[in-house]
Amino acid sequence: MATNKRATVFVSLKDGVLDPQGVTIQKALAQMGYGEFVSVRSGKFFELEVEASAGDIGQRIDEVCSRLLANPIIEDYRVEH
Amino acid sequence: MATNKRATVFVSLKDGVLDPQGVTIQKALAQMGYGEFVSVRSGKFFELEVEASAGDIGQRIDEVCSRLLANPIIEDYRVEH
Repeated sequence: MATNKRATVFVSLKDGVLDPQGVTIQKALAQMGYGEFVSVRSGKFFELEVEASAGDIGQRIDEVCSRLLANPIIEDYRVEH
Repeated sequence: MATNKRATVFVSLKDGVLDPQGVTIQKALAQMGYGEFVSVRSGKFFELEVEASAGDIGQRIDEVCSRLLANPIIEDYRVEH
C-alpha cells in the first residue's frame, strides 16, 4: 500500500493588509519587556494529507487554496510539498 | 544602520490534540468534491522582526514562545531563523 502524500499550505496577509492579531501581540510583548520585537505578523498553515492514489495534486491544492483555505482578496498562500 | 533580524515561529497542536478547525475544513473539502484530502491539521505562524542591536535572540524567542505565542500544554513550536 502506497504512502499518502503530504503538503503544507502557508497563508499570510498580503503586504499592507492590517494584521490586528500581530499588532496586539507586538504590543503585549513590549509591555512584557520584550521591546526588541519591533513587528509581528501572523499567519496560518494547513498540513494536508492526500490519498496516495491521487494524481497530480498540485492543481487540486491550488484550487483548494483559492476556494477555501485562503481569501485571495487579502491573503497570499504558498505550498510546500 | 544594521538590518533588523527576522525569525518565524510555527505553532501547531501536539499530536493527539483534537483540531476542530482542521476537521471542519476536511469535511468541507469532502463535500466540495475534494475527497482525496483525507486529513487536515491547522497551525499558526508568526513572523518576528527583531531590532538589529538585540544580542542573542534565540533565548528571547524561546521565552516569548512559551510565555505568549504558544500554549505549551497543547501546542508545540519550532523557530526558523
